[in-house]
Amino acid sequence: MDLKFLKNLIVPAQTKIAMIIMDGLGGLPLEPGGQTELETAHTPNLDELAFQSALGLTVPVGPGITPGSGPGHLAIFGYDPIQYEIGRGVLEALGVDFELRPDDVAARGNFCTVDAAGLLADRRAGRLPTEASKELAKLLQTIRIEDVEFFVETVKEHRFAFVMRAEGLGDALTETDPQKIGVPALPVRAIQVDSERTAKLANQFIKRSIELLADKHPANMILLRGFARYPKIPTYQELFGLRAAAIAVNGMYRGVAKLAGMQALKVDGDTPADEFTTLERCWNDFDFFYLHIKKTDTCGENGDFWGKVSVIEEVDRVIPRLMALQPDVVIVSGDHSSPSVLRSHSWHPVPTLLYSKHVRADGIAEFGERACGRGSLGLLPAKDVMPIALANAGRISKYGA
Amino acid sequence: MDLKFLKNLIVPAQTKIAMIIMDGLGGLPLEPGGQTELETAHTPNLDELAFQSALGLTVPVGPGITPGSGPGHLAIFGYDPIQYEIGRGVLEALGVDFELRPDDVAARGNFCTVDAAGLLADRRAGRLPTEASKELAKLLQTIRIEDVEFFVETVKEHRFAFVMRAEGLGDALTETDPQKIGVPALPVRAIQVDSERTAKLANQFIKRSIELLADKHPANMILLRGFARYPKIPTYQELFGLRAAAIAVNGMYRGVAKLAGMQALKVDGDTPADEFTTLERCWNDFDFFYLHIKKTDTCGENGDFWGKVSVIEEVDRVIPRLMALQPDVVIVSGDHSSPSVLRSHSWHPVPTLLYSKHVRADGIAEFGERACGRGSLGLLPAKDVMPIALANAGRISKYGA
Repeated sequence: MDLKFLKNLIVPAQTKIAMIIMDGLGGLPLEPGGQTELETAHTPNLDELAFQSALGLTVPVGPGITPGSGPGHLAIFGYDPIQYEIGRGVLEALGVDFELRPDDVAARGNFCTVDAAGLLADRRAGRLPTEASKELAKLLQTIRIEDVEFFVETVKEHRFAFVMRAEGLGDALTETDPQKIGVPALPVRAIQVDSERTAKLANQFIKRSIELLADKHPANMILLRGFARYPKIPTYQELFGLRAAAIAVNGMYRGVAKLAGMQALKVDGDTPADEFTTLERCWNDFDFFYLHIKKTDTCGENGDFWGKVSVIEEVDRVIPRLMALQPDVVIVSGDHSSPSVLRSHSWHPVPTLLYSKHVRADGIAEFGERACGRGSLGLLPAKDVMPIALANAGRISKYGA
Repeated sequence: MDLKFLKNLIVPAQTKIAMIIMDGLGGLPLEPGGQTELETAHTPNLDELAFQSALGLTVPVGPGITPGSGPGHLAIFGYDPIQYEIGRGVLEALGVDFELRPDDVAARGNFCTVDAAGLLADRRAGRLPTEASKELAKLLQTIRIEDVEFFVETVKEHRFAFVMRAEGLGDALTETDPQKIGVPALPVRAIQVDSERTAKLANQFIKRSIELLADKHPANMILLRGFARYPKIPTYQELFGLRAAAIAVNGMYRGVAKLAGMQALKVDGDTPADEFTTLERCWNDFDFFYLHIKKTDTCGENGDFWGKVSVIEEVDRVIPRLMALQPDVVIVSGDHSSPSVLRSHSWHPVPTLLYSKHVRADGIAEFGERACGRGSLGLLPAKDVMPIALANAGRISKYGA
């Protein structure tokens, strides 16, 4: 079922949908036979909500596929994450809240170290301090070539977002990072004819960078990869007629939500409780709310099982504040799994709960991986969650007579 | 898996398949935490059959999509309901048992009221009595334009099926109903070149109608919408080598079954028991039987929870008559859900039971939504049921060596 088919069935309604995404929610037990982070967590409010909900396990991209945050979010937002690919460069730019324009070409940049022979000695320039990195970014930003504007926005340590702005640029470009040391960096090459001028401009930028950075050892060169333009994604307003808002602390998630046409709301503070305060404040102004909890993933990636348990419990404690708003539909899920025993994103399906007055509740009073595995939503593509949520919100009309 | 792939694997067999469709079978509890109509019904025979069956929940069209009866039936018959779309006009004609031919163009017609200025005053002509509507239909049926035959078949009150018969007609036509009053009706416009002559003919018909209906206030004009031709659907005989029969009381379901090449059998009476009598009478003459129970849906749409429970119990009581015929495969399902609390069709998956000697029975002695949610067929597209039924009937050969 494609989005065009769905779009043609959308009808307006006075209903509100809240989607709570705990990043990397799915997990694994510490020991075989044990309980996952979510199963371990004491979550009386989520368990009660589960009892009134349909449960399932979502597959963000496909069987066995470990999603990055971009595809994971596109999927739970209802888009096919294989069809709508977000380039790394775009994600990097979105992550620093850069206002990327449709014609901009973005890349992920690194400061790096080259030796006297021009061979790579350190692909990360000794992970130079962020403050030093910012000074060098300012230096590079002075570069002008023809009619092209360049933006160099520090992310953290050696990493920066690189953006080229001009008319007629292309993003079919190869990377300069050879992924090993002792060899020279690669030149940017155009894969398609429409990107040939852009390749030339990028190489000129690199050449000028080397001149400006000559005495800045260890950060005496740059590497660029993941060249990409803003993907053309139909917005929530266009597709679903939803006034959609994003409540997220980190730039990347605000950025992905903005791709889908959501308005990124201001959050005072960075705790789940702070995010729920924003939800309460703006409840009357939107039809759809995406609320993102980052720390579940951070703990997962750090191998911090108990930290992840604790974040989940923290979210559980604020669930009554959400339910007090009387949402018509609530989704609680993740963009992917991040089991702390794996210290990384993983391919495991993601526990998912869908609550509404009209849902056929499974009557399972537990929110956890195995409980969701017994739920009536079954094992479903993450992109199928939004259509079911829209149906429960009375926003999809009958197909055929 | 497409039908062409399946068709190439079909082999003949001396087996019989019975598909019992309770229209709008799936439901919801009256109160959260309660039981659905099917779960509430006392169904000892269906429960016993369930124990020997594989259970599952079918999704007729897609996640969150509420199917009309046309798409719902095509899906459970094994067709992709998005690929094979049945136009409203065709359904209307089928519903009155009109023998629609492949080149005919059908539409859904309304008598309506226009004021002296030609503006719509009532889109339904005060829902004029069916008898009066029939008289006016006869009047309109006298219209002849060029080589075109027109058919005007009363459905009920202001509604009629409108059919144009000639060679070379097209159905890429816009509707005349502006969906509001106080404005004039719209002209029929061709969306594709091949329908331009048809648009002209339809507009001429409307003009002649206005002349004939001038003194018939409130039914002094007509509206036409949902222009469509018979969709080209490969038949059960062509696809599966099945001699298929339909046992249904209402014209629309007989019509959809005829689209699939089924022979619509005569039913004396209109109760489930009457339909099972037809099943018994014709058991030796066909390989496949579709038996349709309408009243489950009628009760669902009327908000009559206990009426729906009662119809399900009525069907349960005649199940032993079906099993006495020793069918090789039995499917009990619905074309969609119609929860009485929603008083309408809905998107909820449909409880489904598949019995055969060779099925891997789940051993769940209950036919209900949540029981089916625990079944081994899982949550499956409705169109996947027929291939499984055919396999159980020994009618699909091995794929590959």
